[in-house]
Amino acid sequence: MTVWAVEGLPEIHPGDDLAQLIADRAGELQDGDILAVTSKIVSKAEGRIVQAADREDAITAEAVRIVATRGTTRIVQNRWGQVMAAAGVDASNTDDGTVLLLPEDPDASARALCAALRERFGIRLGVLITDTFGRPWRDGQTDVAIGAAGLRVLDDLRGTRDASGHELAVTQPAVGDEIAAAADLVKGKANGTPVAVVRGLGRYVTEGIDPHGAQALIRSADTDMFRVGSTEAWDEGYRAGLEAGGP
Amino acid sequence: MTVWAVEGLPEIHPGDDLAQLIADRAGELQDGDILAVTSKIVSKAEGRIVQAADREDAITAEAVRIVATRGTTRIVQNRWGQVMAAAGVDASNTDDGTVLLLPEDPDASARALCAALRERFGIRLGVLITDTFGRPWRDGQTDVAIGAAGLRVLDDLRGTRDASGHELAVTQPAVGDEIAAAADLVKGKANGTPVAVVRGLGRYVTEGIDPHGAQALIRSADTDMFRVGSTEAWDEGYRAGLEAGGP
Repeated sequence: MTVWAVEGLPEIHPGDDLAQLIADRAGELQDGDILAVTSKIVSKAEGRIVQAADREDAITAEAVRIVATRGTTRIVQNRWGQVMAAAGVDASNTDDGTVLLLPEDPDASARALCAALRERFGIRLGVLITDTFGRPWRDGQTDVAIGAAGLRVLDDLRGTRDASGHELAVTQPAVGDEIAAAADLVKGKANGTPVAVVRGLGRYVTEGIDPHGAQALIRSADTDMFRVGSTEAWDEGYRAGLEAGGP
Repeated sequence: MTVWAVEGLPEIHPGDDLAQLIADRAGELQDGDILAVTSKIVSKAEGRIVQAADREDAITAEAVRIVATRGTTRIVQNRWGQVMAAAGVDASNTDDGTVLLLPEDPDASARALCAALRERFGIRLGVLITDTFGRPWRDGQTDVAIGAAGLRVLDDLRGTRDASGHELAVTQPAVGDEIAAAADLVKGKANGTPVAVVRGLGRYVTEGIDPHGAQALIRSADTDMFRVGSTEAWDEGYRAGLEAGGP
């Protein structure tokens, strides 16, 4: 697997043709390549800009569920199911006095970008829209896939066998998130290279573009052991924690 | 960045010299290369094998805090601070009738492996011990770093400036976990290649081996918004959730 950043992209403005700007600078792409695109430039191209003074209202409008709060920090779930800080509303790499919302529909953004790039190059390409998320229990942030098109983001190995011949019961590598993480290692946050190419994972790239969205990475409520107030996280966990001398 | 799997490792047994087995098959390593080693083979070399009948007792012994339970599934925190399912006790890729515990002290295992490999090759190398974790709210699993030596696992950009000149307030890419994720994309779960080499990230590789453990990736209790029973996750989140019609 080889991963590199696409150099030379200009500052993105509302209405820019992102597919063309990327295609002109991506060099020679090969069948099966995956492009990881930072959500920020997708938001800019889509004009998802609001005044910084309206930031808190914007977060409220983007959120469908508050997962946790501390002081002014809100961890929320948005309408696409993503759980993240401040609904992804972000002030870094934006014009003064403004903040950016996430793309209106990241899977739709990925599909449009993927279709345009496949058309331009005439090969199978995958597209991920990536964003930077914090994690419970672990410090720091990793990039994850919030939009996807033209590739499988979850590699379902359940039912297959390991090298010892045992059936794998729960193994589903979240390859979309792992590819986003790999891409972040070459994109960096401060150097203005918001797009990376990932080569060598063509096995995840699909013939068609639909339906292979990042929605597949959202855990459904019924398998969510960390839905606050659920029996598991509260009654059992809290009681056990208290018995162990915590929290 | 280039990432590839080390081919040809034999089945690992208690007492095996893992550093030598890897070094003999890693090909020509370069200064700044990082080796991502699946915890399973470290556990095997360290003889961390218990009878499957003792699995539940082993999980209890490894856990210092129960974070959540559902049926027979326990999400726990172990003594190194890692929060994961079943304390990492795992039956895949093991001999029949046995399960494997995580390495006794993954950072110590990484240091020993890193020291031996640096000695053998005479260059700066980094070592990660990786394991596969599920995530709250997101489906599938990603590999993370549970042990590290010879590299920084957290890239602290707080206080630096983005391309627009704004100070980055919270940005700390969890590069250890992102490298583990990238390595998993080439190692795979079913094909018996538990070691990968990551080239191109020498900027994270340090002169010395200590102290650069994966402990830096563990969120401390005071910044943990998802400590069950905490004010944030329960009072505020649950109340807001109830008001919104959930859980």
